[in-house]
Amino acid sequence: MSVLTVCLNPALDREFYINDFSIDKLHRLTPEMSEMTPGGKAVNVAVDLSYYGINSVVMGFIGGYVGNVVLSELRKKSELITTNFVHIEAETRENIAIIDEKNHALTEINSSGPWVPLEDLQHFIKRYELIAANAEVIVISGSVPLGIPNSVYGELTKIAQKLGKKVFWEARDPIIMESTKISVPYILKPDMRNKKVLLGKELVSQKDYIEAGKELVSMGVKMAVISYEIEYDIIVTSDGVWIISPTVEVEHSHLLGTGDTYMAAMVYKFLKGESLLEMAKFGYAAALAKTKYKAKETPPFKDIEEAFEHFKIERVE
Amino acid sequence: MSVLTVCLNPALDREFYINDFSIDKLHRLTPEMSEMTPGGKAVNVAVDLSYYGINSVVMGFIGGYVGNVVLSELRKKSELITTNFVHIEAETRENIAIIDEKNHALTEINSSGPWVPLEDLQHFIKRYELIAANAEVIVISGSVPLGIPNSVYGELTKIAQKLGKKVFWEARDPIIMESTKISVPYILKPDMRNKKVLLGKELVSQKDYIEAGKELVSMGVKMAVISYEIEYDIIVTSDGVWIISPTVEVEHSHLLGTGDTYMAAMVYKFLKGESLLEMAKFGYAAALAKTKYKAKETPPFKDIEEAFEHFKIERVE
Repeated sequence: MSVLTVCLNPALDREFYINDFSIDKLHRLTPEMSEMTPGGKAVNVAVDLSYYGINSVVMGFIGGYVGNVVLSELRKKSELITTNFVHIEAETRENIAIIDEKNHALTEINSSGPWVPLEDLQHFIKRYELIAANAEVIVISGSVPLGIPNSVYGELTKIAQKLGKKVFWEARDPIIMESTKISVPYILKPDMRNKKVLLGKELVSQKDYIEAGKELVSMGVKMAVISYEIEYDIIVTSDGVWIISPTVEVEHSHLLGTGDTYMAAMVYKFLKGESLLEMAKFGYAAALAKTKYKAKETPPFKDIEEAFEHFKIERVE
Repeated sequence: MSVLTVCLNPALDREFYINDFSIDKLHRLTPEMSEMTPGGKAVNVAVDLSYYGINSVVMGFIGGYVGNVVLSELRKKSELITTNFVHIEAETRENIAIIDEKNHALTEINSSGPWVPLEDLQHFIKRYELIAANAEVIVISGSVPLGIPNSVYGELTKIAQKLGKKVFWEARDPIIMESTKISVPYILKPDMRNKKVLLGKELVSQKDYIEAGKELVSMGVKMAVISYEIEYDIIVTSDGVWIISPTVEVEHSHLLGTGDTYMAAMVYKFLKGESLLEMAKFGYAAALAKTKYKAKETPPFKDIEEAFEHFKIERVE
């Protein structure tokens, strides 16, 4: 038994560390100035889970030269990760990040990613049904490629629920809006890095965040984990509302991948049979522990335990 | 019989067309905003030659994911190109060019390229001896990877000369300096895009360029083709000195690949049995014709013929 992580739109994450990166110049790199890692939110979750000794099957669409690199690099990461991608014609996306630590600048060039035809989606769904039946829990996170409707999270969750499986989501609001019309997940962590919007409403005050979380819970979500002003989290369940806040300063330039570590850590505690609130606390601690590292790295348990000393959780309602 | 083009350090050339490219921003690309082509000077020569109906064998060192892309894309280019690379452990280099046509800015990120161990060079030389024996003419152009001495052009040319073959070079001065200690080519086109230095001397006046060309000819080079103030060329043979100048304005942002087209066009005329000066004129015309195109493209014969109307050649000495 293992975790099924669904990464519909995986990516090759490429980081270039160039101090004084500037326009209209030629920059020569030495090998240690660049990194290439398999990416996409659910791929990152699978990698984190493998560090914690948990098997996963990663599903999604992959294609082209870039897709082959993602696949080979992902397989190298851990024997605990099994890949089961539908191979498509188009090229998998590549996300280039040019990190200038000297000037604290992050310049990004993200490719559009592939267009996935309907027949490939149908093929994917058939395979998904088979694999979901054997999964202990399902994580669906990250963007949806062109050609696939935003309601796909809802469709996949409906299938999972018929099989008696619990589903975790991390997604942007357009996906949440379309997919919750079909079914709702067990745990929902909205991805609001780009826009502070949830269920179509702009969130400004803490009250707005709490109300949006309550609305999700009233729709059937068991726990909403909502990031608030970057370093806080608002946790809403049918039992109440909590706010988690750090007691130390958080390094904002090290936030890359924290959301995925949060998700993986919650899944880890879910598999141990822990309560919703314990899952959220452990997820937060793991995300906080991750900010010690610049790159996308999984924090070891020791760091997570230490991180428990650096935040507080308060019941708000 | 065909041309042997030696590209010791091939590359994957990647062009991103991003208007208003700026630091600390996220730029999203649509598919038509990026291009990926096999590169490295002698690879470009082979591609140009294939457009002119000439077979070539491309040799050099290739490795890793990037190497595989270069190889597949090169094979797609033309059936007239045969590849015979020594496969190495390290990753082939990638040259990223971010072209902002709106602001006339070219931002480049070039990776270091692989380190090639000595045993791979020995393996290469064995294969080179076999293939060179069947080649009609040999072109060696472009950079030398880490681990390979700059004298390699000289060593390869010495082998070619024993086989009775003529060799064309396009290279930077450190390679010319080290390699001419061993042997000199038939045609030498110094690559002075970075530094106006030839045989260790800085070139300033037109006279400096002519003297350097004469020195090369005195060393045994049959013709030196030296770029002067970007759009002029100084041609030196044992018969005299000529200067070629355009009679139209040259678009400087379209110079990418012109040197390689120049080389391919000279090789084309060499194979037709034309004189040195005819080779140089045709090379110049082809390079000028190429500047009609933004990307690395081979100009058709029609454009080259037209280009003959747009430059003049004068005997200086």
